[in-house]
Amino acid sequence: MQATANNSSDSLCDIGFIGLGVMGGNLTLNLADNGYKIACFDLDQAKIDAIIAQDTAERGDAEPRVIACRSYTELLKNLKAPHLIILSVPAGEPVDHVCHHLIDAGIDADDIVVDTGNSLWTDSVEREKKYKGKFIFFSTAVSGGEVGARFGPSLMPSGNPYAWTRLEPVLHAIAAKVDPDTGKPIESNTPGHPVKHGEPCATYIGPVGAGHYVKMVHNGIEYADMQLICETYHVMRYALAMTPKEIAAVFRDWNEGELNSYLIEISAEVLEQTDTETDLPLVDVILDRAGQKGTGLWTAVSSLEVGSPAQTITQAVFARSLSSLKDERVAASKVLAGPALKEYSASEREEIVTALKHALYCSKICAYAQGFQLMDIAAKEHGWKLDFAEIAKIWRAGCIIRAVFLQSITHAYEQNDNLANLLVDPFFTQQIVSYQQDWRSAISHAVLSGVPCPAMMSALGYYDSYRMEVLPANLLQGQRDYFGAHTFQRVDKPAGKRYHIEWSEPNRPQVSIKK
Amino acid sequence: MQATANNSSDSLCDIGFIGLGVMGGNLTLNLADNGYKIACFDLDQAKIDAIIAQDTAERGDAEPRVIACRSYTELLKNLKAPHLIILSVPAGEPVDHVCHHLIDAGIDADDIVVDTGNSLWTDSVEREKKYKGKFIFFSTAVSGGEVGARFGPSLMPSGNPYAWTRLEPVLHAIAAKVDPDTGKPIESNTPGHPVKHGEPCATYIGPVGAGHYVKMVHNGIEYADMQLICETYHVMRYALAMTPKEIAAVFRDWNEGELNSYLIEISAEVLEQTDTETDLPLVDVILDRAGQKGTGLWTAVSSLEVGSPAQTITQAVFARSLSSLKDERVAASKVLAGPALKEYSASEREEIVTALKHALYCSKICAYAQGFQLMDIAAKEHGWKLDFAEIAKIWRAGCIIRAVFLQSITHAYEQNDNLANLLVDPFFTQQIVSYQQDWRSAISHAVLSGVPCPAMMSALGYYDSYRMEVLPANLLQGQRDYFGAHTFQRVDKPAGKRYHIEWSEPNRPQVSIKK
Repeated sequence: MQATANNSSDSLCDIGFIGLGVMGGNLTLNLADNGYKIACFDLDQAKIDAIIAQDTAERGDAEPRVIACRSYTELLKNLKAPHLIILSVPAGEPVDHVCHHLIDAGIDADDIVVDTGNSLWTDSVEREKKYKGKFIFFSTAVSGGEVGARFGPSLMPSGNPYAWTRLEPVLHAIAAKVDPDTGKPIESNTPGHPVKHGEPCATYIGPVGAGHYVKMVHNGIEYADMQLICETYHVMRYALAMTPKEIAAVFRDWNEGELNSYLIEISAEVLEQTDTETDLPLVDVILDRAGQKGTGLWTAVSSLEVGSPAQTITQAVFARSLSSLKDERVAASKVLAGPALKEYSASEREEIVTALKHALYCSKICAYAQGFQLMDIAAKEHGWKLDFAEIAKIWRAGCIIRAVFLQSITHAYEQNDNLANLLVDPFFTQQIVSYQQDWRSAISHAVLSGVPCPAMMSALGYYDSYRMEVLPANLLQGQRDYFGAHTFQRVDKPAGKRYHIEWSEPNRPQVSIKK
Repeated sequence: MQATANNSSDSLCDIGFIGLGVMGGNLTLNLADNGYKIACFDLDQAKIDAIIAQDTAERGDAEPRVIACRSYTELLKNLKAPHLIILSVPAGEPVDHVCHHLIDAGIDADDIVVDTGNSLWTDSVEREKKYKGKFIFFSTAVSGGEVGARFGPSLMPSGNPYAWTRLEPVLHAIAAKVDPDTGKPIESNTPGHPVKHGEPCATYIGPVGAGHYVKMVHNGIEYADMQLICETYHVMRYALAMTPKEIAAVFRDWNEGELNSYLIEISAEVLEQTDTETDLPLVDVILDRAGQKGTGLWTAVSSLEVGSPAQTITQAVFARSLSSLKDERVAASKVLAGPALKEYSASEREEIVTALKHALYCSKICAYAQGFQLMDIAAKEHGWKLDFAEIAKIWRAGCIIRAVFLQSITHAYEQNDNLANLLVDPFFTQQIVSYQQDWRSAISHAVLSGVPCPAMMSALGYYDSYRMEVLPANLLQGQRDYFGAHTFQRVDKPAGKRYHIEWSEPNRPQVSIKK
């Protein structure tokens, strides 16, 4: 039984949905589960048919909740006015393609179009301007992959505040929910039975683009988090000669404490998996060339451009680039020797595993500190007022980096919404200071065993740099003044006053530079 | 006595020069020293007067070599045709401003305009297109600061090959010179007595933009080189409690061996300098906030965009950003404790200093390996054919990173112009493998003492990653397949074939993905 469109007044739909790929289809079913009647359109009619078939199969012969439309015009005709239309199409040109077709089909100035794709945030800013007067362009970043889309994603909406008042109940309904006491997700993966209680993982982020920017940083943090887990795995596997199953058990154990997170959990699942073809651990048959879709790279580039030292996120991006040079690495491995591997006793091994646990936790704190610092610096640059406690809150469920850890970050920003850096929140300060010896010892073991831990080392470099009253940038400024007359400031003179040494003159006099 | 322009035929000038700032003025005098008669123009007439005064003062009452022009039209009138005009104006809009004025003044299609500023390389590409048919736009990146400009810079010209045939003798004349046997600079800092023998540090790099790209990477390497020196200083100063003068003596010693370089030399000079106001070491009164002009950042962004893991260069850029957060660091230093500092005996200290020397050298090899790898990957992307032996050659003198080390890089690429990475050149392989234990031990000391060495650690991370046959990117691909169905390749199946595990199904079957 397939519902087709008609426009008798009582059958008008609440929301139009364009783009029924994996994400779009699941968002559509999630909306329907929450009581919204959806008119949908896709250039590929088969995708619409598949979603309607899935919906009726799940629910039996019930009243249609999803209506198929054959054109943009038909979609508009089947919607209540003012129209609310959600897009889930590939980032870039396809978004504008759809927008232009909607204009041709007669969309109105007070209609709302919501982009849920992985758009570059500056594109969203451009689009709001470009479509002003034609319709209201709004953007909502979505995290959580296909399962999140179906049963509750984390949502980062931004744009026109009027559009937000209309969207708020919709996005709150479909978002992931959190138990406010524990900070843990409340999950239901049963079609037709969405979670109705708990705190929704959707909050208004700010002007258009801000939501996609925050989502971009989320993904940058995700890159760092994944790379850090991979590095601890690598030390256990290579330096401690542990099996994937043994390492999975370690991850399961870590998942009971402060490292509890979706990423640790699925890492254990992957490491436990046996390849049915070869009977080897699955991880050993997976080719070690990491793919990337671009959001990690965008985060790293943005951090360079605004001058926010997100070095662990950036190292994670480079680690993926380096992994892709597989042929070069195989050739290099034959000539570039490493140190001899040490044999460890069981108790030494246990000690190093504990050190690694704390190293992972401290490094993770630094990666998140970098992400929040980047959002802070970028917000100042772009004139956004971001609420970091709210952002940490909506990352507690629905998204890839969900973890109890986010509850601690929420608390940190709730106690002090002017926190300069996560590292100086009293809770995190206490954590990192008390674990730092293990962190240093774990890295020292990795360095001496020849196991690369670029992200973990960069996190420690970040920590040790951030806590240094005096960095060797004084020597660097001396070098710059020497070869390029770039001038320097003095610690004992007012900020902004600049000096230069006449290095080529015999007595090397200091001159004060007038602006 | 000031020469003014007239256009009697025998007094026509060889070259027009626009922009007489510090760099432009010195390039003008360098050209004049090499026998070229120059017509010059600057919006600020006082700058022209100053250069002419400097020239006549240096030479006494001799025939004028530099002619002052009051307008673009007068400049063109005073030049031999086809006109050759060199610009030294700030990067960005000013370059186009001058180009448009030259067009208005009647420049011809076969005239050549050479941009020597710090332009973004893509701007040069745009300009060649934009001015096609009006004149020939050519670009030459210049390294070496003001002294280099006056007595011999390193030059990286790129663009129209016809323009190069005309420019080659000019740029060879004014460039720095190298003794081909030792690879060391041949220097003369006496006005009117340019060095006439040796290999000139100017080589044709490729199509327009390529020269500025190579110069950009040069600056990225310079950032890394400076930061690495600062980190070794910091370990000696902070963990080993050595004085600036003691550290200067160490740098002077290192400068006798494989680390011999301009940057090590000037670091020693800066550390030896006493502040006349306070009698303290100058380095201690210089504010530790590093400035940056953008080329390091451009290099880091480019490396991210083309997927070349230039992590040490990038860490150096971040180290500058972090240094500029001075107030935050001072506040953090009061709450974020580090480890207790160890006291070292004189012999232990000596051992660590030697380890640091080798650590600096190994890290430096990695930073240069990253820079050359970036040029290689970018050249493939942009269709350039870069000659790395020639590029290493022209960096041996005139520029900031000049060092005997560049002679070894020249040899590496002369022996194998298809070298995948500097690290696998037999000489560098032997060096790094034999010094690696010291490198690891120096980093381990820094890590355990709490001295941040982000660039040095990233270099080791690069080395250990590059030489790893199997990286933990296999686990990472497993994670990505788990949460996002991103698929993976198998080590035992043809490249490109992609697989996915149905993670949510009970038996987790593997499916083969059809494109």
